[in-house]
Amino acid sequence: MSKFNEFREKQDEINALGYALNHISWDQATEAKSGSNEYRNKQVGILSKKQFELVIEPSRIELIRELRNDASLSEEETREIYLASRQIDSLEKVPANLYSEYQVLLSRAQGIWENAYIEKNYSMFKDTLKEIIEKTNEVLEYRNDGSRSNYDILLDDFEEGMTSEKYDEFFDLLKEQLVPFVKQITSKEVIYNDDFIKNNFSEKGQKEFAEYLMDVFNFDRERGLLKESVHPFTWNTHSQDVRLTVRYIEDLMTSSIFSAAHELGHALYEQQIDSKYDGTYLSGGTSMGFHESQSRFYENMIGRSRVFWKAHFDKLKEIFKEELAGVTMDDFYKFVNKVELSYIRVEADELTYPLHIMIRYEIEKEIFNGEVDIDKLDERWNELTKEYLGLDVTNDSEGILQDVHFSAGLFGYFPTYALGSAIAAQIYNTMEKEICIYDIVKSGNLEPINTWLKTHAHKYGSFKTSNEILAEMTGEPFNPEYYTKYLINKYLELFI
Amino acid sequence: MSKFNEFREKQDEINALGYALNHISWDQATEAKSGSNEYRNKQVGILSKKQFELVIEPSRIELIRELRNDASLSEEETREIYLASRQIDSLEKVPANLYSEYQVLLSRAQGIWENAYIEKNYSMFKDTLKEIIEKTNEVLEYRNDGSRSNYDILLDDFEEGMTSEKYDEFFDLLKEQLVPFVKQITSKEVIYNDDFIKNNFSEKGQKEFAEYLMDVFNFDRERGLLKESVHPFTWNTHSQDVRLTVRYIEDLMTSSIFSAAHELGHALYEQQIDSKYDGTYLSGGTSMGFHESQSRFYENMIGRSRVFWKAHFDKLKEIFKEELAGVTMDDFYKFVNKVELSYIRVEADELTYPLHIMIRYEIEKEIFNGEVDIDKLDERWNELTKEYLGLDVTNDSEGILQDVHFSAGLFGYFPTYALGSAIAAQIYNTMEKEICIYDIVKSGNLEPINTWLKTHAHKYGSFKTSNEILAEMTGEPFNPEYYTKYLINKYLELFI
Repeated sequence: MSKFNEFREKQDEINALGYALNHISWDQATEAKSGSNEYRNKQVGILSKKQFELVIEPSRIELIRELRNDASLSEEETREIYLASRQIDSLEKVPANLYSEYQVLLSRAQGIWENAYIEKNYSMFKDTLKEIIEKTNEVLEYRNDGSRSNYDILLDDFEEGMTSEKYDEFFDLLKEQLVPFVKQITSKEVIYNDDFIKNNFSEKGQKEFAEYLMDVFNFDRERGLLKESVHPFTWNTHSQDVRLTVRYIEDLMTSSIFSAAHELGHALYEQQIDSKYDGTYLSGGTSMGFHESQSRFYENMIGRSRVFWKAHFDKLKEIFKEELAGVTMDDFYKFVNKVELSYIRVEADELTYPLHIMIRYEIEKEIFNGEVDIDKLDERWNELTKEYLGLDVTNDSEGILQDVHFSAGLFGYFPTYALGSAIAAQIYNTMEKEICIYDIVKSGNLEPINTWLKTHAHKYGSFKTSNEILAEMTGEPFNPEYYTKYLINKYLELFI
Repeated sequence: MSKFNEFREKQDEINALGYALNHISWDQATEAKSGSNEYRNKQVGILSKKQFELVIEPSRIELIRELRNDASLSEEETREIYLASRQIDSLEKVPANLYSEYQVLLSRAQGIWENAYIEKNYSMFKDTLKEIIEKTNEVLEYRNDGSRSNYDILLDDFEEGMTSEKYDEFFDLLKEQLVPFVKQITSKEVIYNDDFIKNNFSEKGQKEFAEYLMDVFNFDRERGLLKESVHPFTWNTHSQDVRLTVRYIEDLMTSSIFSAAHELGHALYEQQIDSKYDGTYLSGGTSMGFHESQSRFYENMIGRSRVFWKAHFDKLKEIFKEELAGVTMDDFYKFVNKVELSYIRVEADELTYPLHIMIRYEIEKEIFNGEVDIDKLDERWNELTKEYLGLDVTNDSEGILQDVHFSAGLFGYFPTYALGSAIAAQIYNTMEKEICIYDIVKSGNLEPINTWLKTHAHKYGSFKTSNEILAEMTGEPFNPEYYTKYLINKYLELFI
């Protein structure tokens, strides 16, 4: 057997365990009752441990090391080995006991953050946060070969190829163009009829519309399904089994519509990846940022466009005859694009969302550059919120404590959220030169858009990097100008 | 670590893999789309193989052998080791290559049987059946120490402690009492209004009634749920996660009602097993026959009783106002207990069902005693059908080919189906001396019946054998007289 086939064979059991763990977590999120939790935790612990042991098995690591220098591998095989190396890189370098100390700390931190969040009191969490940051740096010291900063290692972990230099350029542009634009825009008032939103929109009706969207987006129902869960998500084990969930909130019906559109973006990406990559390191979307670009593309650029509602508002009115009586397409379009300065990231609209990310990026950079006193991180957060959003934070749970990420050690993750929207805008700019997006959206079936994305991006899975795909499909490297232009044009049109 | 704890630790990974495989098959039966099949097959193959390797790992077998003779074990531990030994018994004795040849044959046989079934032509299947029987005997020769017949080994595999001697006694009684009784009964006609069955009963209404039954049967919703699947079944990973499925057929609404009652019997049994047995060989119901006794008890003895419909027919009429207009409780009671001579086992009513099993038991005995020419097994089947049911089989698919079991090598399995009903009747006879079944059923909540069964049977899981539980709870060994008496009394009352 060739060394590469030996690697693939070892991979089979790792994948099968991943497949099993995925099914168990799907079941947990969508179906299982509380009584099953304790036993599940034990089983998941055993299966995860087994999988981890196989990943770090010395003979496997040895094999990957050898294959790293094997010039006879195909391009795809080389990429697979590279991605496998990336995964074991930290495990090779970081002492096992430090790694497990870190995990124990994070697991403890979760509950401490939750309590602090409930009490709206950062001082209950700050010492733990300090410990997490120290331990994160300790781990990173083992991984750092001196060629880059610790924060750059984290940024690259979550988005292959990204650095603080690139993100700085991105966020500087946002700061320069969006901060004043948001101030300008939010000082005006858009007039439209939004009385309808107080109505009750039945779960049944919302479900019917979500199922309708599944077909509008041309989701392949033989290879996946739509279900419900408390938090919407997309789940997949390979390109032939891709599922999405939404939540139906009767007094906030737009939630299920835009969750469906968002998750459909993730789901179409996964469905359109070449099935030859199933079960390999090349399966799945290429990066967090690129994945998010696809969900934001379908949710915002398609789903919140005027032409989309030109095509589909009648269907929504047909389902909710009484609830939407007297509401025009224009009212609805304006409502789903309203801009509001708010404290909470996950509730933010398309325009102000990146400013929330900017706050987090600044904070993380300052943390890892040692430029901020962790004891006063809440004050720094509030300062930045005032600067970018013009808001005075009144308690820590609408400020520094609002996200779970820091308590889970997820530093460097946030920027990918904003990156996704910017990538989407760059793709949109190229796409509209090659196909008529307006006509396709108006036609009621997004298939030609899907096919274009499949051809230029989706089919590659993780074979190509986000940067490679973007450069090949748009003819230039990542360029955030398209994003700010898109936002400014869209909201100028809406507010003037 | 003690040897026993070492055994338990090895068991942990085997269990966790079983837990994973169970979730994957639950998903397959209730949710997954066809596109996911191929990849699933591969992953299930890998996980099952891994689990099997752990089960037959030489150090584990060695450990179990040592523990078999360990007098210091508790009674429960001894039983666990006994059940583990039972599982590996055949694996120890049968050469691995013969075992895998057998699996290959069975896997091939499946398709051959399916084709023969479609073509209604036994001659297309008979050579394969001959091979299966030969190979089964070849395997059994390795397991047979000369103390019992090959067929007795099979009977014991499916129902611990059962022998052809015991089953002969059982089926002789059925032949003697039920065959003439069925002839007598089916010559009479019961008059009632059954026009309603032609109506369409909405899935929504059926679902509402099934959910209502979940509460009537006092199913613990924190530890399980009701869902849909093509074939109804009960699924559980441990006592804290027990699920059942039904199917809603709009032109046969009684199907979902009695499937629900049947599966609720299985499900209550699993929910009421002592949770200390979770994850051990003592978890789960003690035998196939005993499990079936619980489902038949709740489905037939409770669910098809007059008092049950006295308590719940109003609810059914409330849901199906128009569809059941003019139908009396008595009409409905008679309809759900109608007796019909029919060819197909799975469609048979409570009274004629055991006669279908009797045919199969006779056939299997003759096969393993070498008393029948396999080439003419179809003729023998038809002869017995004529003798017991008075029917002339007109094609092999309503005769010898109707069940999947023979093609899957499942000889010795059928008798447990009839055994279950007989055990249920014996239990009922004791129960009604200790609690007032009539009043409890009439009250609308079966909780006191569940508790009685929990105390006397369910809680033991597989710690005690079916025979032990039955003897302790009823004060005598298995006695099929209660079953024939129950059937004759019930149907005399209905038909006279």
